[in-house]
Amino acid sequence: MKLGLKDIEKAKERIVPFVHNTPILSSTLLNEYLGHEIFFKAENFQKIGAFKARGGVNTVAWLLETGQKPNHIVANSSGNHAQAVAYAAKQFGIPATVFMPEYSSKVKIQATRSYGAEVILSKTRDITDQKVREAAQKKGTYWVPPFNHDQVICGQGTAVYEAFHQVKDIDAVFTPCGGGGLTSGSLIATRGLSPKAKMFGVEPLNANDAAESLRKGSIQRLSGIPDTLADGAMTMAVGDITFEYLKQLDGFYEINEDDLVYWTQWLTHLLKCRIEPTCAMPMEAIRQWLRTQKTKQRVLMVISGGNVDQPTTLKIWENDCLTQIPQR
Amino acid sequence: MKLGLKDIEKAKERIVPFVHNTPILSSTLLNEYLGHEIFFKAENFQKIGAFKARGGVNTVAWLLETGQKPNHIVANSSGNHAQAVAYAAKQFGIPATVFMPEYSSKVKIQATRSYGAEVILSKTRDITDQKVREAAQKKGTYWVPPFNHDQVICGQGTAVYEAFHQVKDIDAVFTPCGGGGLTSGSLIATRGLSPKAKMFGVEPLNANDAAESLRKGSIQRLSGIPDTLADGAMTMAVGDITFEYLKQLDGFYEINEDDLVYWTQWLTHLLKCRIEPTCAMPMEAIRQWLRTQKTKQRVLMVISGGNVDQPTTLKIWENDCLTQIPQR
Repeated sequence: MKLGLKDIEKAKERIVPFVHNTPILSSTLLNEYLGHEIFFKAENFQKIGAFKARGGVNTVAWLLETGQKPNHIVANSSGNHAQAVAYAAKQFGIPATVFMPEYSSKVKIQATRSYGAEVILSKTRDITDQKVREAAQKKGTYWVPPFNHDQVICGQGTAVYEAFHQVKDIDAVFTPCGGGGLTSGSLIATRGLSPKAKMFGVEPLNANDAAESLRKGSIQRLSGIPDTLADGAMTMAVGDITFEYLKQLDGFYEINEDDLVYWTQWLTHLLKCRIEPTCAMPMEAIRQWLRTQKTKQRVLMVISGGNVDQPTTLKIWENDCLTQIPQR
Repeated sequence: MKLGLKDIEKAKERIVPFVHNTPILSSTLLNEYLGHEIFFKAENFQKIGAFKARGGVNTVAWLLETGQKPNHIVANSSGNHAQAVAYAAKQFGIPATVFMPEYSSKVKIQATRSYGAEVILSKTRDITDQKVREAAQKKGTYWVPPFNHDQVICGQGTAVYEAFHQVKDIDAVFTPCGGGGLTSGSLIATRGLSPKAKMFGVEPLNANDAAESLRKGSIQRLSGIPDTLADGAMTMAVGDITFEYLKQLDGFYEINEDDLVYWTQWLTHLLKCRIEPTCAMPMEAIRQWLRTQKTKQRVLMVISGGNVDQPTTLKIWENDCLTQIPQR
């Protein structure tokens, strides 16, 4: 692996003043239901409500540290990365412009603006992407990509890095996988801190480009916008940098929409947290993996974020899953 | 006041091994919106998901301490008090029977059973109340009431007691008011620890028996089951013990259902927490009170619980309130 534990440690040092060391949550009831111990790194309580703050802040801090301070930062995103870059730029007093598709959740657009970034809305994702490319041409402008970037990866890896210092003897780590930034960073941290621990990625079955890529040995792209509630994992393809790390995972899970809704309801209920559907995928993967284990396991899961809009909330709670207790 | 700070301190000592000292939450964005500082004592992260664990545990621990150990504990409740008594009884190895109406949320019935209590369901609240009265006749059986009891009040008061040690210079405290146990205990703690701080109670306008009682100077009873999403404040009347404390509040607010839904959505969104609609009432009262203040205030609010079932969740999120940013 190109990046190692030292790179994560450096990222951690850079971001400490600007992000939270989020708490570890657990549920006695869930542990009783499953017969194992599950620890949740609660990045929904992170700045901007998602782990993305880590990668954003680390990248901007690294630019300054290496004498590359830009006079303008740009990014394109419909989601948490938009807020992360706006937040990061603000911490270092650098003007930021974030290009977002009009269909982005109003709540995320508002929040991005409230961190002081200029938000430019476009009709489609394609126009958004075109505009950021143009803006990035300007001298002194730095484009912070959402995942395919060493410093973004190292920033995201600090969540699992911290968790290993908060909980001892972790047997396995599960993270949701969109573009692969969080999963890659978590892999580096896990391999560096606990070579015996297993590390798994998880994706929605309806947006399984990473799983397909791993099966075929080359990066596969989704053919159209996927139909999944896990909006944080709707990325069309992983990156060439992140793909190299994904190949080294101990396994990869694809989760259907029913299971995703089921665990969004149950984790919300048990942990009393606001949880994006994207975070509920790893929980189903954990349940499936635990069924193959003969001894009691200690599992770490990253709750990646808590930014959910009203239409998504209604979809999540359409049917009542809380009447069916989780089964081993 | 009959009870004082010493009684709360004793309760705190009793319950320490069995309940969480819950964290204080805050939202930078909310504080910016309102121009003041709001601190939330997060009792949704308490054992059983609500402050009620405090009163339940304190009462049972006090029975043991004073040589009154019962051989059977009973309670009647459709909600968090059922779970609290089940949890408390389990901690001291005392068998418990909880009488609940059939229409109680399945999630709360399940949870009460999972704490080891026998749950007996009845068609109506009246039959439930009749059954607990009969059960309580048996020698050696103790009936833990939901609010009108010194030790229940002192237990509930420990939440605000802790909060005053977690946050300094609080100007005002707001709590939701159902039967008045939390509000009474909070008043005792507030007066004892910070005589200059104001203390307010808050009720749904559609279940405003306490406000009516305060206006008329005698305990008023609701004429029928109230139509409010704040199920934690649907109590038909306050008790003779709690009423004496409620009379000493600095003010009392009645909140309509629209504002209640608005703040349930916004606090869920900003704090990334699962929040009962009951807890959102004080937030609207805080906004109203802050409008009358000329200087920056530091306000404490108790998030009373996080147990919400699926039908209630759907009602809360029926319309999108997140598009309207909170106004001063």
